[in-house]
Amino acid sequence: MLHTNVKINELGHLEFAGADVTVLAKKYGTPLMLLDSERVKSNVNVYVNGLKSAFTPTSFPCYASKALSIKEIYRIVKAQGAGIDVVSCGEIYTAKSVDFPMEKAFFHGNNKTDSDILYAIENGVGYFVVDNVEELNAIDSIANSKGIKQNVLIRITPGIDPHTNAKITTGQVDSKFGTPIETGQAFDITSKALALKNVCLKGFHCHVGSQCFDSTSFIDATKIMLTFIRDVKNLFGFDTEILNLGGGYGVRYVESDPEIDVLKNLEIVGKTFNDILKEYNLNVKTVILEPGRSIVANAGLTLYTAGSFKTIDGYKSYLSIDGGMTDNPRFALYGSDYTVINASKASLEKTVIATIAGRCCESGDVIQENVSIQQTSRGDIIAVLVTGAYNYSMASNYNKLCRPMMVAIENGIDKVIVKRETFEDLIKNEI
Amino acid sequence: MLHTNVKINELGHLEFAGADVTVLAKKYGTPLMLLDSERVKSNVNVYVNGLKSAFTPTSFPCYASKALSIKEIYRIVKAQGAGIDVVSCGEIYTAKSVDFPMEKAFFHGNNKTDSDILYAIENGVGYFVVDNVEELNAIDSIANSKGIKQNVLIRITPGIDPHTNAKITTGQVDSKFGTPIETGQAFDITSKALALKNVCLKGFHCHVGSQCFDSTSFIDATKIMLTFIRDVKNLFGFDTEILNLGGGYGVRYVESDPEIDVLKNLEIVGKTFNDILKEYNLNVKTVILEPGRSIVANAGLTLYTAGSFKTIDGYKSYLSIDGGMTDNPRFALYGSDYTVINASKASLEKTVIATIAGRCCESGDVIQENVSIQQTSRGDIIAVLVTGAYNYSMASNYNKLCRPMMVAIENGIDKVIVKRETFEDLIKNEI
Repeated sequence: MLHTNVKINELGHLEFAGADVTVLAKKYGTPLMLLDSERVKSNVNVYVNGLKSAFTPTSFPCYASKALSIKEIYRIVKAQGAGIDVVSCGEIYTAKSVDFPMEKAFFHGNNKTDSDILYAIENGVGYFVVDNVEELNAIDSIANSKGIKQNVLIRITPGIDPHTNAKITTGQVDSKFGTPIETGQAFDITSKALALKNVCLKGFHCHVGSQCFDSTSFIDATKIMLTFIRDVKNLFGFDTEILNLGGGYGVRYVESDPEIDVLKNLEIVGKTFNDILKEYNLNVKTVILEPGRSIVANAGLTLYTAGSFKTIDGYKSYLSIDGGMTDNPRFALYGSDYTVINASKASLEKTVIATIAGRCCESGDVIQENVSIQQTSRGDIIAVLVTGAYNYSMASNYNKLCRPMMVAIENGIDKVIVKRETFEDLIKNEI
Repeated sequence: MLHTNVKINELGHLEFAGADVTVLAKKYGTPLMLLDSERVKSNVNVYVNGLKSAFTPTSFPCYASKALSIKEIYRIVKAQGAGIDVVSCGEIYTAKSVDFPMEKAFFHGNNKTDSDILYAIENGVGYFVVDNVEELNAIDSIANSKGIKQNVLIRITPGIDPHTNAKITTGQVDSKFGTPIETGQAFDITSKALALKNVCLKGFHCHVGSQCFDSTSFIDATKIMLTFIRDVKNLFGFDTEILNLGGGYGVRYVESDPEIDVLKNLEIVGKTFNDILKEYNLNVKTVILEPGRSIVANAGLTLYTAGSFKTIDGYKSYLSIDGGMTDNPRFALYGSDYTVINASKASLEKTVIATIAGRCCESGDVIQENVSIQQTSRGDIIAVLVTGAYNYSMASNYNKLCRPMMVAIENGIDKVIVKRETFEDLIKNEI
């Protein structure tokens, strides 16, 4: 199977995190999202331990909240001692609601409004990752009004194209994010930050994109960023404390995706980092990565109930499910790959080719096109694997559908962590 | 200007439905969605009057709720005497909450679950638009259990490709929707429907896709569907009462889109319809269209506040706004065109080319790429035109952002019709 938390049990049903998913589908209804809490923990710990041992003793990961920002995740991340990357006041509010230590929060985003900045400062967010000069000035002014000095990193675009989907590529020079080295603008913003009284520059951030399956991009980024840090030291006499390399490693969605040994890869990048650090005689104390997808993706799985199985003679077959782009818009947005299994008949061979169609009144509402699946009847439970990241967090009420329930499985015990939306919820704000 | 409800006033500000939008942005904050109630009414009435006069006295439009399903729209549609197309229990619930007469509701969708069918029957939905045989049987069985005979139409795929975006094309033979004529399956499902005791077949539905700027597709659909209806009469002796041609006409998003005279086009299709009806000696009494976009799109406008304006020297410029794919995912999904105006400086020439970037931590979060706009500073109000359809209805909380407020303007009076989401709303269902 794709990941070790997915099995087929003796009844021929799909098992996830040790639980028969058809039992859970019956107990809670569908669409249903499952979260393997143990897997989230172990994924976080790979980065917690790996960064410490491969880079420096104070290095740590920040979980990228946007992959799945819910209370339960913040509880788990907090218990493992990791930090968080937050991108909005909503994420800050959610993390704070479970007493997440906000000094370990890094506030990202290409467009923080003045009220965002005020809210984050008032709520003790540890670091701003500053995107641009206008934001830098706004932070300085608002920090001044609150009588504090705000720690910041500056987001730099290193000019790396990781050859992934353009919509999730962020490291190239032409990006809505950050300030490029190539054009000299990164030095300008650094010099401006150093001149301001109410911001305290702690280091630099970069992000090269998602779904990287080897360390090439991270090694390139490390080289470019440490060279930049050396140049900044030479130019301004500034000693960088923190280097935040953004992102995490790729996740396996389908059998053809490679498996990746994160620990081993961290060691490779760590060696590059420490070698260059020595060569350049720099004092960077802490390296941060910001894995999101690689923490939660394979800890998630979505269950649907099969509706009609329709064969257009001479064309193709459509299997309709009771969810779709409203809970998982990634195929509609990026054409993303997913593995689909008939959980009720998981031990059967996949003998059918079908397009898994969502229930929205929209032709583009498809979860996967022309995939192999077991012979399926109305009422069977359909599982889509590796849906922990960028599914619930991107969910909508399109077609006025209620967003699904999420159930966590921890040591074999299932518990609701996000209740199913109700019709009342849908019109709560309407007058 | 693109539509007659958009003007520039003597202060050089953008005016929408007679209101200075910069004043509304200040009063309510941004992002802010505006709805021109008078425009919704007049758009509905074009179809109400046009269908009556061009087709038959009992013909009428059904508003396609999925474009924007909120209480206020159902109130307006109800007052104009039109019907509705609904695609979920959530839409039924919302329409019922303002006492919409449910006998005028047509329930669509490629995958109605058993509980959807039960809910719709219990709530007196007038017609099911049956997608497939499994659904037909489920309706018959549930209607039987409730002791009623349910009116239905059958959704047919006429085999027309309207040459629009594949994601919004629905009429071709290979579709997740409906049952094709070409393969003979449409006759099979008709014969099955006629044999069932608890469904009452009233007619047929087809839909050829969105954004049609002339009547070619509707004329083709009329010909094909009336030929099918004739064949069904000859085969089964069945007299079709209702022909539902689905959809509405295209909407102008940018200057290069054509302007379309809906009344005139309805007359053209109506003539084709009546000519063939006579030729084939058929008794179709009622023709229905289901405009959604063409009712609400140009009655909507979204306001944002400008954040940073970032020029990557030698590459391009990015204007960041305080919303994006979370309130308008159409560029991310389909690369849709939009007209963008600096509402604070609307009388200035558009001298700048910029990419309008949303605030999400995602490179694909863009509202429009390389568009002309006025010179813009942080704090200016940015208007995106023609956002009434498939914007709020597709909105998400990605990045844990709150969904915007919606304000209606009616006879110059502004009133909140959807309250802004709060942080409390965001975690309401989390445990």
